Amino acid sequence: HKIDKDALRLYRIYHSKPIEVFRTIVICVLHLLAFFEFPSSLTWTSDIRYRGDRITLPCGVTEGIELVCLLLLTVDVCIKIHLVGKVEVLKKKWLVAALVVLTFSLIDWMVTIGMSCTETKRIRRIVRPFFLIANSNLMKKTVKCVQRTLPEVASVLLLLALHLYVFTLLGMLLFPTPRDTDSTTNNSVEVFLTGNGSNSSTMSPISNTTEVPVVQEGNIYFRTISNAFMNLLVLLTTANNPDVMMPAYQHNRFYALYFITFLLIGNYCFMNMFLAVIYNQFRGYFKTSMQASLLRRRVGVRAAYEVLKDRDLYTQVASSPESGVAIETVKLVLDDVTLPKKVKMAISQDLSARQTNQVDSLQNLQFQECFDLIVKESFTRHKPEVRWLSNPILRQIQRVIAHRGYNYFGNVVALFNVVMISVELATQYDKSLNSSKSALNIVNFAFILYYLFEQTLKIAALGWKRYVYERWNIFDGITTVFLVILEIFSIAKYGLPLSKAGEVHDQLTLWNAVRIINILIMVRLFRIIPHIKAMSIVANTLVDLIKNLKAFGGILVVIYYSFAILGIEIFHDVINFTEPNSTVAGSLAYDCGTYQQLEYWANNFDDFAAAIVVLWDVMVVNNWSIFLAAYAKALSQWSYIYFIVWWLVSVIIVLQLFTALIIENFIMKWDRSSRQQQEERNEDLGNN
Amino acid sequence: HKIDKDALRLYRIYHSKPIEVFRTIVICVLHLLAFFEFPSSLTWTSDIRYRGDRITLPCGVTEGIELVCLLLLTVDVCIKIHLVGKVEVLKKKWLVAALVVLTFSLIDWMVTIGMSCTETKRIRRIVRPFFLIANSNLMKKTVKCVQRTLPEVASVLLLLALHLYVFTLLGMLLFPTPRDTDSTTNNSVEVFLTGNGSNSSTMSPISNTTEVPVVQEGNIYFRTISNAFMNLLVLLTTANNPDVMMPAYQHNRFYALYFITFLLIGNYCFMNMFLAVIYNQFRGYFKTSMQASLLRRRVGVRAAYEVLKDRDLYTQVASSPESGVAIETVKLVLDDVTLPKKVKMAISQDLSARQTNQVDSLQNLQFQECFDLIVKESFTRHKPEVRWLSNPILRQIQRVIAHRGYNYFGNVVALFNVVMISVELATQYDKSLNSSKSALNIVNFAFILYYLFEQTLKIAALGWKRYVYERWNIFDGITTVFLVILEIFSIAKYGLPLSKAGEVHDQLTLWNAVRIINILIMVRLFRIIPHIKAMSIVANTLVDLIKNLKAFGGILVVIYYSFAILGIEIFHDVINFTEPNSTVAGSLAYDCGTYQQLEYWANNFDDFAAAIVVLWDVMVVNNWSIFLAAYAKALSQWSYIYFIVWWLVSVIIVLQLFTALIIENFIMKWDRSSRQQQEERNEDLGNN
Repeated sequence: HKIDKDALRLYRIYHSKPIEVFRTIVICVLHLLAFFEFPSSLTWTSDIRYRGDRITLPCGVTEGIELVCLLLLTVDVCIKIHLVGKVEVLKKKWLVAALVVLTFSLIDWMVTIGMSCTETKRIRRIVRPFFLIANSNLMKKTVKCVQRTLPEVASVLLLLALHLYVFTLLGMLLFPTPRDTDSTTNNSVEVFLTGNGSNSSTMSPISNTTEVPVVQEGNIYFRTISNAFMNLLVLLTTANNPDVMMPAYQHNRFYALYFITFLLIGNYCFMNMFLAVIYNQFRGYFKTSMQASLLRRRVGVRAAYEVLKDRDLYTQVASSPESGVAIETVKLVLDDVTLPKKVKMAISQDLSARQTNQVDSLQNLQFQECFDLIVKESFTRHKPEVRWLSNPILRQIQRVIAHRGYNYFGNVVALFNVVMISVELATQYDKSLNSSKSALNIVNFAFILYYLFEQTLKIAALGWKRYVYERWNIFDGITTVFLVILEIFSIAKYGLPLSKAGEVHDQLTLWNAVRIINILIMVRLFRIIPHIKAMSIVANTLVDLIKNLKAFGGILVVIYYSFAILGIEIFHDVINFTEPNSTVAGSLAYDCGTYQQLEYWANNFDDFAAAIVVLWDVMVVNNWSIFLAAYAKALSQWSYIYFIVWWLVSVIIVLQLFTALIIENFIMKWDRSSRQQQEERNEDLGNN
Repeated sequence: HKIDKDALRLYRIYHSKPIEVFRTIVICVLHLLAFFEFPSSLTWTSDIRYRGDRITLPCGVTEGIELVCLLLLTVDVCIKIHLVGKVEVLKKKWLVAALVVLTFSLIDWMVTIGMSCTETKRIRRIVRPFFLIANSNLMKKTVKCVQRTLPEVASVLLLLALHLYVFTLLGMLLFPTPRDTDSTTNNSVEVFLTGNGSNSSTMSPISNTTEVPVVQEGNIYFRTISNAFMNLLVLLTTANNPDVMMPAYQHNRFYALYFITFLLIGNYCFMNMFLAVIYNQFRGYFKTSMQASLLRRRVGVRAAYEVLKDRDLYTQVASSPESGVAIETVKLVLDDVTLPKKVKMAISQDLSARQTNQVDSLQNLQFQECFDLIVKESFTRHKPEVRWLSNPILRQIQRVIAHRGYNYFGNVVALFNVVMISVELATQYDKSLNSSKSALNIVNFAFILYYLFEQTLKIAALGWKRYVYERWNIFDGITTVFLVILEIFSIAKYGLPLSKAGEVHDQLTLWNAVRIINILIMVRLFRIIPHIKAMSIVANTLVDLIKNLKAFGGILVVIYYSFAILGIEIFHDVINFTEPNSTVAGSLAYDCGTYQQLEYWANNFDDFAAAIVVLWDVMVVNNWSIFLAAYAKALSQWSYIYFIVWWLVSVIIVLQLFTALIIENFIMKWDRSSRQQQEERNEDLGNN
C-alpha cells in the first residue's frame, strides 16, 4: 500500500460513503440489465401460450448502459490498482481476476456490437456476478469458508455416489427386465423418469400375480443402468417416493425394504452428513468475525493514540513522558472524524465528563475506553415524559391510555377483527368481496372507526413525541392512516355501508379496495408479536437472521444469476406448446404426471425471470423430475447434467449452508441470552 | 431402596445378564405380536387387488402369548416395587405408570377373551410400546430431553401457525373464487387437495387471459378457508410445490412471489428454527452422558475402596491408618466380580506389576487408576507374527503377500470385476442373467477362481492366526467361500460356462444363482472403504452413529408402533378397490394424480406391516397429499388430523431430532480427532 499524502487522500475518497453507494448502484444496475436484455422479462406472464410478443428494447440501449457500468468498474479497478501499487497487484488474486473478467467482458461487448446484437451466446453475462462478490469483503470471506469445506463435502459426495451405484446394480439384479418385452420397449422408454403415474397405462388389474409386478418394476424404473441410476437419484431427493416402489411393493412387501434402506441411508444419513460437515466449518463463524472486527478497531484506536501522543510530545515540550494525549487534542480530532452523530455526541460527553473531573490528558486505557463507545449498540434513548394535564378526569384518562392494558385491549380488538374476517370469508365468501353492503364491509367500517379513535386518543393523550418514541406506534399509525384513506375512498365512491344506495357495478375497483383493506387489517395484527414473549424471541431471531445473512443472500443471488443465464443459453425456446392430440373427445390428451399434463408451460427458460422461478422450483425439489424428463425429451439426455449440477449446488451446498447459519445464529443468541440471565442472577445474588 | 441381604441378592439376580436378556425377549415378542394378530400381515402383498385371504390365527393363540408376556412383565414390575420399597413407589412415576398400563392391558385382554376375539378396538395395543421405553434408561433420558424442548417447539409452532393463517387469508383475498361458479362447484370440490394435475380437466388453452387464471387458482386451491389452509400446509412440506402456484403464475408472474415468500419463510426459516431449537437442547448430549457415567463409575470405585479399607482395618490390626487396601484383598474381590475377561486380565496384570514393585497396599488414587482400566476402550491386541519359511523363494513370496501392495492389488481386481458387471448389465442385460453361458458368467467364473486363489495364498503365506487378526480378511474369506459354493452349485447344475452343453430351462433357479453371485461380488467391494482415508472417516462416523442412536431407534419404533396401530383402528378396510369406470376404451379411468390413478392400492392401513410403510411414505413427505385426499374422500375430512399429527410428530420432532443427533455426534468426533492431532503435533514438537 502506498502511504504518501496523495494516495491517502485518494484512499479516503475511494472509501467514502457516496462513492461506495455509487459503486453499489452501478453493480445493481449492471445486474438488473438481465431483466431487460433480449429475451426480456417484460411480459405479464411467462406462459408460452399466453405471453404474446415480448417487449424488445432496440439494440444498443442495454448495451450502452452496460458499457457505462463496465467502464465505471474499470475505473474502480484502476484506482484500486493504483492504491495497492503495481508491484503488489499480482499478489491480490481478486484484483487480477477482476482485470481478466473486465477485459473479457469488454471484448465480448465489442463482439455483440459488431454483430449488431444478433449473436446468441453472451458469455459475459454469466461472469457478471463476479463483481458482486469482488466488492463485498463479507462475501469473499464466506466463499473462502465454503471453499474450505469442499474437500469434506467431496468425500461425502463420493460415498454417496458409491451408495447410489451399489444400489443401482442391486436394483438391476433384484428387478430384472424381462427378455420378451421388445414390443413394449418404445412405450417404456418414453415414460422414462416421469415416475408419476405412467404405470397405469401399462398395467391393469390382472389375476396372475406371480412374476408380473417385478417385471413391471424392471420395465419401468430399472430398464437400463442409466435409467435406474437416474430414478434412484431422484428417489434420493424423495421426489418420486412412493411411485418408484409401487410396482415391486405390489408384488411382495419385502421389496419395500430395499427402497426404505436406500432412502434411510441416502436421504437421512448422507444429507445430514453434508449439513454436519458444513455446520462444523461455520461453527463460531459469527463470533470470530465479530472478534476480528473488534480486534481491528482496537488496533486502529491504539495506533491513533500513539500518533496523537507523539504529536503532543512535539507541540508541548513541558509534558512529562507518561502524560498521554491531551483531551483538547482528542476533541479537535473528533470534529474531523466521520462517525455517526450519536457516537460523536456520546464520546464528547464522555470527554467533557472527564474534563470536569480535573483530568487533562488520557492514558492509553482511558483512550481505549472512550472509543469503545463506538461498539456500544444501543444508546439509551431519552424516553419523553407525558405532559400530564391539570384536569383530574383528563389525567385519569391519560393514565389509562398510558397503561399497557390499553395496548393489550387494542391487540385483542385487532385479533377479534381478524377472526371476524375469517368467519366472514369462511361463510359468505362470494358475497363479502363483491358487494359494498356486505356484512364484512360493515364490520370493517366499524373497526376502522375504532382504530382511528384509538390512535387519535393515543396521540392526544401521550403527546406526539412519546407516541413516536415506540416503533410499534408508528407502525400502527401508518396502517391506520392508510385504512382510513381507503375507507374514505370507498365511501366516497359507493356510499356508507349502511345506507340504502343502489348496488355498484364497478366490480373490479371495489373488489380491490375491499381486498386491500382486509390485507391491511391483517398486517396490523403483527403488532401483537412483541407482546408474546416466546414469539418475540423467535421473531427477533428471525429478524436478526436477515441482518446476519447478507453475505448468504449475496451468494444466493450470484448462484441464481449465473445458473439462470446459463439455463437461458442452453434451454432457450426448447419447449414449445403442442396442441394435445385429442383423438377421443373428453379424454385426457397427455400422460399423467408429465410437464404437458400438469400445464407447467409457464415454467421455462425463455427469459430471466422465468428461469429464476424454474431454478427455485428445482431447488424446492418436489416434482423436479418432471422438469428433468421434459427437458431431456425436448433437447437431449445431457440436459440432466445441468439440473443435477444445480441440485448439487443449490440443495447440498447452499441450503445446507443456510441451515448451518441459522443454527449458528440461533445458538449464538441463545448462549448470549443465557449468559445475560446468568449475570443478572449473579447480580441479584450479589445485591441480596 | 432396601439394602438388606435378601434384597441385595434379589437385586443382583434381577439385574443379571440372563434375566435382562429374557426381559428384552419378552418385550420383543409382545411387540412382534402385532404382525400376527388379526388383521395379520401374513400375505405376500398388501395390495388389496392381489393379496387374497390373509392367514388368520385361531382365537387364543396370539392372546395366549400376550397373556404370558403381560404376566411376566407384571412379575417384573412387582419385583421392582418390592426392591424399591412400597413407600417409595409413588415417587417413581414410571413404576406407577407401568402399574396402570399393566392393569389396563389385562382388563382389556379379558374383554377380548370374553368377546371371543370379535371386538375391533383393542386399545391396549397402542400403549404396548410403553414397556419399551420404561425398560431403557437411555430412552427415558432422551424422552426427558425431548420433553424439555417442547415449550420452545410449541412457540415456534405457534408462530408457524400464525404464518400459515395470515398467508391463508392473504391467499383468499389475492385469489378470489368467482361468484358464478356454482355449476363447476362439484367438480372443483372433488379434486380438492390433490393438486396434482387435476387442473387440466377444468382448463383449456384459451385466448382470453385477463381474469381467468386467477379465478382458476381461487377455484381449485383457494376455494374455502379450510381448503386454502390445507393446500398451504401441504405447500409448507413442498409436496405440491409447482402445482399449487401454476394457475396464478400462468396469469401473472408476480404471483409467484406470494408462493416463494411463503415457502422461504415457512419451509426454510421455520423448519430450520425447529432444528435449531432441538439441536440446542441436545448439544453436549453425548458428552454429558459420558461424563455422567464416568462420574458414577468413579463414585462406585471410591465407595468400593472405602468399604475394602474399612474391612482391612478390622482384619489387620497392625496396619497403619494411611495404609489403604491390600493388593491381595483387591485380587480376591476381583475374582468374584463380573467383568469382561479382558478387563480382569488387564487389572490383575497391573496389580501384579505393582506387587513386584514392592507395593503391598493401594492408596485411593492408585486404586482409582487401577480401575480406570475398565474405561480404556481398546486393549492392544497382540499382532501374531508371520512364521517365515526357510526357503528363500517361498519367503520372498510370503513377503510380497504380507505387503499391503497385495491388498491394493486385490482391491483393484474387485473394482475391475464390478466395473465388468456394470458394463455387462448395461450392454447385454437380458442375455447376461438368463443364460448360463453369457459373457457375464464366464467373467465371474474367472474372477471367482482368482478370489479363491488369492485367499488360499493369503492363508497359506500368513498363517491362520495372522489371517484372522484382521477383520477385513474374515469378511473377504466368508464372501469368497459363499461365492465358491454358489459357483460350484451352478456348475454342477449347468456345466462349466465354457463347455458346450445345451441351454438350461430351469430359468428361475439359474437366474437367482446368478443374481446372488453378482450381489456378493458387489458386497465384496466394500473392502476398499477402509483403504481410502476420507471415506473411512465418514464411514466410521456412520457406524458409530448406529451405536449411539439406539435410544433414537427405540423412540422411532415406539412412535411408528403406536401410530400404526392407531391407523389400523381408524382406517382399517376404508379404501376398497373400485373398477375404473371406463366408458371410453383406451382412455384413462381415474383423474391424474389421485390414489387410484397412481395405483397406490398397496398403501393402506389394512394390516400392521402395510401401515408402517404408509407412515414411512408420509414421513418422507413427497406425495403425502395424495394419501390425505384419498382418506379424506373415503372416510371423512377429519382424517386430516391423523395425518397432520403424524407429520408434526415424525417430521418436526423425530427427523429434526435425528439431524440434531447426527450433527452432535459428528462434531464430537471431529473435536476429539482434531484434539488428538493437536496432541500428536505437540508431542512431535516436544520430541524434536
